[in-house]
Amino acid sequence: MEKVDILLSGGSIVTMNERFDVIHDGALAIRGDSIVAVGPRAGIEARYEGAEKLDCTGRIIMPGLVNAHTHAAMTLLRGLADDLRLDVWLLGYMMPVEREFVSAEFCRLGTTLACAEMIRSGVTAFADMYYHEAEVAQATADAGVRGVLGQTVLKFPSPDAETFEDSLAYTRRFLTDWANHPLIAPAVAPHAPYSNTDDILHRCVELAKEFDAPLLIHLAEMRREVDDSLRDSGMTVVTKQDSINLFDAKVLAAHCVHIDQNEIHTLKQRNATVAHCPQSNLKLASGIAPVAAMLKAKLTVGIGTDGPASNNDLDMFEEIRLAAILAKTQANDPTVLPAREALLMATRQGAEALFIGDKTGSLTPGKRADLLVMDATPVHNVPQFERDPNLIYSRIVYAGHSADVRHVFCNGRMLLRDRELLTIDEARVVEEAQAVAVKIDAFLRAREQNVLGKLVAIGGLQRSESFEVQMKAALPDESALDKLLLHPDVQIVRAVHYRQFDTYFLFEDESQGRVRYREDDLLDENGEMISARTRLTLTMPVKERTFDDVALLSRSRFIADAAQPLRFYREYFKPEAERELEKDRRRWHLLYQGVLFYLNVDRVIKPALPGTFVEIKSRTWSARDAEVKAERISDMLRILGLDPSNVVKADYLDWQELAAQ
Amino acid sequence: MEKVDILLSGGSIVTMNERFDVIHDGALAIRGDSIVAVGPRAGIEARYEGAEKLDCTGRIIMPGLVNAHTHAAMTLLRGLADDLRLDVWLLGYMMPVEREFVSAEFCRLGTTLACAEMIRSGVTAFADMYYHEAEVAQATADAGVRGVLGQTVLKFPSPDAETFEDSLAYTRRFLTDWANHPLIAPAVAPHAPYSNTDDILHRCVELAKEFDAPLLIHLAEMRREVDDSLRDSGMTVVTKQDSINLFDAKVLAAHCVHIDQNEIHTLKQRNATVAHCPQSNLKLASGIAPVAAMLKAKLTVGIGTDGPASNNDLDMFEEIRLAAILAKTQANDPTVLPAREALLMATRQGAEALFIGDKTGSLTPGKRADLLVMDATPVHNVPQFERDPNLIYSRIVYAGHSADVRHVFCNGRMLLRDRELLTIDEARVVEEAQAVAVKIDAFLRAREQNVLGKLVAIGGLQRSESFEVQMKAALPDESALDKLLLHPDVQIVRAVHYRQFDTYFLFEDESQGRVRYREDDLLDENGEMISARTRLTLTMPVKERTFDDVALLSRSRFIADAAQPLRFYREYFKPEAERELEKDRRRWHLLYQGVLFYLNVDRVIKPALPGTFVEIKSRTWSARDAEVKAERISDMLRILGLDPSNVVKADYLDWQELAAQ
Repeated sequence: MEKVDILLSGGSIVTMNERFDVIHDGALAIRGDSIVAVGPRAGIEARYEGAEKLDCTGRIIMPGLVNAHTHAAMTLLRGLADDLRLDVWLLGYMMPVEREFVSAEFCRLGTTLACAEMIRSGVTAFADMYYHEAEVAQATADAGVRGVLGQTVLKFPSPDAETFEDSLAYTRRFLTDWANHPLIAPAVAPHAPYSNTDDILHRCVELAKEFDAPLLIHLAEMRREVDDSLRDSGMTVVTKQDSINLFDAKVLAAHCVHIDQNEIHTLKQRNATVAHCPQSNLKLASGIAPVAAMLKAKLTVGIGTDGPASNNDLDMFEEIRLAAILAKTQANDPTVLPAREALLMATRQGAEALFIGDKTGSLTPGKRADLLVMDATPVHNVPQFERDPNLIYSRIVYAGHSADVRHVFCNGRMLLRDRELLTIDEARVVEEAQAVAVKIDAFLRAREQNVLGKLVAIGGLQRSESFEVQMKAALPDESALDKLLLHPDVQIVRAVHYRQFDTYFLFEDESQGRVRYREDDLLDENGEMISARTRLTLTMPVKERTFDDVALLSRSRFIADAAQPLRFYREYFKPEAERELEKDRRRWHLLYQGVLFYLNVDRVIKPALPGTFVEIKSRTWSARDAEVKAERISDMLRILGLDPSNVVKADYLDWQELAAQ
Repeated sequence: MEKVDILLSGGSIVTMNERFDVIHDGALAIRGDSIVAVGPRAGIEARYEGAEKLDCTGRIIMPGLVNAHTHAAMTLLRGLADDLRLDVWLLGYMMPVEREFVSAEFCRLGTTLACAEMIRSGVTAFADMYYHEAEVAQATADAGVRGVLGQTVLKFPSPDAETFEDSLAYTRRFLTDWANHPLIAPAVAPHAPYSNTDDILHRCVELAKEFDAPLLIHLAEMRREVDDSLRDSGMTVVTKQDSINLFDAKVLAAHCVHIDQNEIHTLKQRNATVAHCPQSNLKLASGIAPVAAMLKAKLTVGIGTDGPASNNDLDMFEEIRLAAILAKTQANDPTVLPAREALLMATRQGAEALFIGDKTGSLTPGKRADLLVMDATPVHNVPQFERDPNLIYSRIVYAGHSADVRHVFCNGRMLLRDRELLTIDEARVVEEAQAVAVKIDAFLRAREQNVLGKLVAIGGLQRSESFEVQMKAALPDESALDKLLLHPDVQIVRAVHYRQFDTYFLFEDESQGRVRYREDDLLDENGEMISARTRLTLTMPVKERTFDDVALLSRSRFIADAAQPLRFYREYFKPEAERELEKDRRRWHLLYQGVLFYLNVDRVIKPALPGTFVEIKSRTWSARDAEVKAERISDMLRILGLDPSNVVKADYLDWQELAAQ
């Protein structure tokens, strides 16, 4: 008798090998980190004696599942924010929280939590893309799970690097330190083409080649990426990446939702592999990847959960099932992606997608002992039909649940026994995770207490609090303008003409102020548009004072570039109500007695208001300064031939009031 | 202190009431079948004393889930056949097996198995459509689950009725016997418009109105239903049903995948409700129902698993999650169908869809105590964020698993305690279910042993085994035909002209015979098509004998109308190879010396064969008869001026051989 460490005996062995052998009443022998033998029980038991014997009668023994794409540490952000558009979710929640919380410790804890969930659901290998990847590697190795772990590289500052050069330096150390680890394959992970430059991508490729490491990247997840790529380069996403030789590295591309037949062909030609993430793609409304077409083209496609911040779990059983059924409706053909092929994507083919197909993915002697044992007859998976050998795949894929997983081995080591985790102190991890969540909740609560906090959170604030003195009046006779503009005390600094489109967000608590999203279309002398800019302004409630019989308004304002579309801000700020305002504005920057004022001459187009209005305003910093400026505004009013009866206190938004004046 | 039967204390109570109250550290009091009080723990505990107290600290208490559409007893057919097109699945597997196995006992056992799974996954009410519904009702009541149970009515014979009149009579008894049951609401369930006549539907509506019972029906599940409806009535499916006043009954329509905005409006106007079954629809490639549009129109929509024979389980957690994420991608908007709305569809709105919203669907004092208690912090659902009250819905919908359900109550009775079923002997049900599966496997194995068995299984066989005597020869001179046709011993019965398109299915085991799918286009004297028919013929291998120097062929044949498209038979028979044959055939039915023969004069177009062939054949039943007929065929050969050198033994399919002759 040959001695082995563990003998799994009884049950149905679903090998997922090249012949798709299924062995009923089988046995499997493990020695060290590897599978020594797989076969009918009688034969294996006659030849091998296990130091430990595990009775698997009535169960299914199959390869451990391969999660082809995730961000493990983001498990700590599970359920933080849902049912939001991708940009609101990412820029409004994920990135501010990541900026504040993502540390080495966060990554280690989050990865450990993820590993606990993955082991429980039968995952023995995963591909990761995140920050502080050396910590991710340590946590993964400690949990005993196999990982292809990609250190993120971005053109922006990230939680673990001020610059992309720092990222690349970190990545080089990571690739060096974790080379030749039995469980960990370190990788380079430029986040996506749109979050890197061609030059950075090129340097990532060179680094990956130098270490023969995989390169992990998000490709064509959203339709907009394709549109932007076509606009900027005239090429689709994959074609563009091919043109800069990204695929000289061993590329595992996540998502590939919006790729065409040509791009599929390119990926195949260049030996790139794909991680299909159906649940994340559906939830973020990204679309449905053309998986059937990819498989038809013999592309190597794995299945991934994506990060639990978007998914919201790491359950590969659900993901496999969804991949199988979604492909059918997409192809309008229920025979597409049958159960066996779907399971293949999550085992042998998944391992190949991660470039570790030589080590894992099937129950083949010589491969590492990465496997799971699942209950074959829970009440949600009976009865069992056996006349067709393919029906066992149907049982696993269409009715198997992660909770059916009883034992898990990885690299010959038992990680789960009778649903007990052996390598992770689950209670402690849950407790520590909860403590982080409490802090994040507090951070977000503080931020969400007021509109200003939310504005600050998304960044780009250009100017902190400022005040202005402002006066507005009806201008019955436009020719009076020249009296001011040509006045000897007045020097014109600049004159511009805008069409302004404003959207105001109003909130229930008026003390929070109003957010204005403004598109300024700069016009030439013929009224043709020269350029446009969009800005966001938070104006706090008006403080009103009266001076020299003239109403003076002042308020604090915060201004930020509005890099996102209006819709983003609407979903992010969740206003109680909205108001629209459109006006034609001629604006002069002028010095009156050496002091800078802004003169706006406005016609309000939407809502249509009769007549012309004149606004004179200036920034201020003290009550005394305000009074001085108010006095000068009164002077200018008189020069324009206006008196206090022409002054209007109402805002353009209160147009009914204005129209009545 | 008021006495109650059970007090659930601690945990977060997700009431799903009109205000969507969520009570952290809450308590809920049950007396008899009903909820007496729900509120903060301190207040409830101060007022109520429970005969039993259940600590729910750290858990979520929420309404039991409502499965809006299933065929519970079909749980016994779970995983019987998958990854098949709907017609192959239904006509090739489900219906033959149902014809053979579905009995009162089957329905009772299958429903009990389904109830075991549903209770375990937190379902406390379901809508069912199947046969022997009184047995379904008994099993459901015994399990303690609430059911809106529809007795199926069909225009065809069904497992529980020879005729639709029998069905209606059974339904009337069922409605009478189960009226006013605390758990069961009996209903009328005409299967679908296409499987009933307008008259039967009308009688179902009358019956439903008489008993104020719901009417359950499948509507617009497949695109083809819409096409057929438009073709037959010029109306879409819902519009057609409205025109025959189907919605005079309280209609719960399952699927509604292919309905337009008008039909949504009609359903809403007529107070019909919808059961959305996303997983079944994806798996059978039926499509994606326009749920967001339905909800926008304020239609009452529940979520259903459909039967486990197609789904393949009864897991409402998965179904809710899929409903939520699928709607987002369909609408290209991730803010569509947020978690709370999705959960609403599976609780209060689901109950309303089943017309039992007054009894169940929310944790509201006065409603029946139908609820579940689930673990809030399994490792796959931590951490918990709490700053936004909506996040608890996100946790339940996007990361909750059926395995998290710990306790279940229905109608005040505890059905699951610490994951132990209290009303069902689970081990026994599993064992009995497995025994049924073994029998079904044996039945299908026997059937699938040979092609003939598979042909018999799908029905429509018109003629059982028959033999023929046949002779074929090259006909160098077509004018020789008249010698036979005008011969005094010959009387022509019928002359026809066909264009024949044959597809032959060839099998590895040639002894199984060949299946021929033939389209016969009948032509008029100008060669224009008059009509077409399609037939399926199983021809067993040729037995060859020689008689009178002429080769005689005989074989047994089985003929059936081919009601399904070629593609159906291809997927059903799974041939090893296919061959196509197209020919022009003039055919005479003639009496030679008073005996009926068929004379075929063929030109083979595809593959293109030179020349004309003549075939003479007759049916036979004995060796002696065959010899006599062979003799006469030899006579006719001589009349045509042909001799044994003209005779060809090869089949048209072996065209290379024929062409060489």
